[in-house]
Amino acid sequence: KPKLSFIDIVSSLKDRTSKCDMRKIIHSVKVGLALVLVSLLYLLDPLFQKVGQNAMWAIMTVVVVFEFYAGATLSKGINRAIGTVLGGGLGCMAAILADKSGEIGGALVVGISVIVIGAGATYSRMIPSVKKRYDYGVMIFILTFNLVVVSGVRADKIMKLAGERLSTIGMGFAVCIFTSFIYPIWASDELHSSTASKFDKLASSIQGCLEEYFKIADDKEKQPTIDVSGCKSVLHSKSSDESLSNFAKWEPWHGKFGFFYPWEKYLQIGEVLRELAASVLSFKGCVQSVRQPSTTQRDSIKELCETIGLSIAWILKEVGESIRDMKICRTKVLISPRTQCMIQELSLLVKTLENSTENLGLASFIFHLLELV
Amino acid sequence: KPKLSFIDIVSSLKDRTSKCDMRKIIHSVKVGLALVLVSLLYLLDPLFQKVGQNAMWAIMTVVVVFEFYAGATLSKGINRAIGTVLGGGLGCMAAILADKSGEIGGALVVGISVIVIGAGATYSRMIPSVKKRYDYGVMIFILTFNLVVVSGVRADKIMKLAGERLSTIGMGFAVCIFTSFIYPIWASDELHSSTASKFDKLASSIQGCLEEYFKIADDKEKQPTIDVSGCKSVLHSKSSDESLSNFAKWEPWHGKFGFFYPWEKYLQIGEVLRELAASVLSFKGCVQSVRQPSTTQRDSIKELCETIGLSIAWILKEVGESIRDMKICRTKVLISPRTQCMIQELSLLVKTLENSTENLGLASFIFHLLELV
Repeated sequence: KPKLSFIDIVSSLKDRTSKCDMRKIIHSVKVGLALVLVSLLYLLDPLFQKVGQNAMWAIMTVVVVFEFYAGATLSKGINRAIGTVLGGGLGCMAAILADKSGEIGGALVVGISVIVIGAGATYSRMIPSVKKRYDYGVMIFILTFNLVVVSGVRADKIMKLAGERLSTIGMGFAVCIFTSFIYPIWASDELHSSTASKFDKLASSIQGCLEEYFKIADDKEKQPTIDVSGCKSVLHSKSSDESLSNFAKWEPWHGKFGFFYPWEKYLQIGEVLRELAASVLSFKGCVQSVRQPSTTQRDSIKELCETIGLSIAWILKEVGESIRDMKICRTKVLISPRTQCMIQELSLLVKTLENSTENLGLASFIFHLLELV
Repeated sequence: KPKLSFIDIVSSLKDRTSKCDMRKIIHSVKVGLALVLVSLLYLLDPLFQKVGQNAMWAIMTVVVVFEFYAGATLSKGINRAIGTVLGGGLGCMAAILADKSGEIGGALVVGISVIVIGAGATYSRMIPSVKKRYDYGVMIFILTFNLVVVSGVRADKIMKLAGERLSTIGMGFAVCIFTSFIYPIWASDELHSSTASKFDKLASSIQGCLEEYFKIADDKEKQPTIDVSGCKSVLHSKSSDESLSNFAKWEPWHGKFGFFYPWEKYLQIGEVLRELAASVLSFKGCVQSVRQPSTTQRDSIKELCETIGLSIAWILKEVGESIRDMKICRTKVLISPRTQCMIQELSLLVKTLENSTENLGLASFIFHLLELV
């Protein structure tokens, strides 16, 4: 039997990596394709005569802006465009001002504007709300402003230059968007499925803990090893969740999701799941504790605890399933009273396993949240 | 008395923000300064005659590479340099090959090499170990390769061009390093002090929990509100810790830290502290549970629990202090037996507060870790 489960694990792992790899390969090929498309600006003579050396900027845009998720590409591209326009505009103004101020005055104007704008924009990059959404845009703003204002001292036709660069950046962006929307990889899909799979991970962690707790009866010397990697990955998912929902907001209507889809709620669910993961972790600590009672005492509560553990796991899986399929979860109505009943049964027992009820308390917290979905 | 503590909090908050703000302001000014320095390449005639339009690359390097932490700047700069050299070299080779293959053959060589190298490098960017350390370098590699190979079709003097660009990037990098090392902001300092302050945060969370638990005696209707934001920030510190230690490894000898300082151990301590934070969070859930016994029962264990809670908090603070000052923590020897004694006392009590011992179990886990430091 253990061999079978091992094969199962390997095959499921292979399945997952191959699915993940397919997406990575698709993304890589798409990047290659976008690069070739944008290189055509150089390679085809009629196009090159129009854009000239500025085609470089289109290539740069593709390399820098093309991201794994479609939403990330969109957000970076729009940030870049806005940053370029603002920086270019302000740079032009400063360059014209410098032009009118004579030789030494002009150099002074350039120097002061560079240091003031550079320091100010850099400071704004460190404000959390700006950093979260517009970090890249502000960086491009600083870059464009500097390039324009400094080269303005040399070239007289800044306006034309700025316009040309903007149009090539636009071309690069268009290529990105075009390629990005062939077999798109949506951040919103990823957020959706990762939220659903978190339920499964927690469910299997809880099951693992309970199994281990009642298994030690057989061989006592062996320190129980519980696999909580799934649980820990849930615990550390905050930052990736946040960036995914950030990208998801940029993504247009597609698949099952409309505009103004409630991405905030995914973050809330994630928060609750992280709390549950924390309590599962400390439950594991409790199971592994040296101060646990003897085997006979354990056996007396074995049946009830296993029933409860299994049903918690089942509830979690059910809820995850319903989120995955975007159905309203009927289980809530069915299960809440059942859980209540089990909690009461357990309370009647000696309070040796207080921690198990603690878990239940959090599971019922989950149900409250489900009303949101 | 509550007013006094409120003022304390405000003033400590102000203290911290102002210290943090000072660092941000210093960083902003430094960026501005670096930009002005690099702009001199344009503004001063003798310099401009040497580097020409390539001065643009120096500006770009400064804007993109200059990061908040000195280690981050170094790592990005070195990544950029290596990426440029490799990409430029490979690009030159491909361009020469394309040059020798006639008109149509050349275009084919360029197209195929762009798509193969682009896709391959993009795929390698998604391998976790590469992503963690060399993400930026690989991006620059793709960019440089594309620019060189594509413009190779037009300009005949690629080698010279590539060399010039590289030297201007080097200049930009030198300016970054130079400015970055005036009043440097070390990632290693930040990692060190944040690790130390985590102990304080956890200590105050535990104290808060215990206080609330025995305070409800007075007014029962009010749902106890426990401030666990510090605890949660510890829980979510994994990614920021990892990037800090990643940067810290790049930083040269400075202050109290030598080369090959054991940054890995900070990550291990962080991991254990996160586990402790998880158990504090579920301890809080247990304190707020509706299934807690009545006030009279609570009072019977009040004294002992408060002693234990206080001493856990004191131990944590002591350990944090000793890490901050980089002294060997003597408290371990002093306190371990004392805690053992307390645990035994508590075990004698009725097991109503099983959870409290759970906390102790984890606290003793901390002590094991201290042997590492």
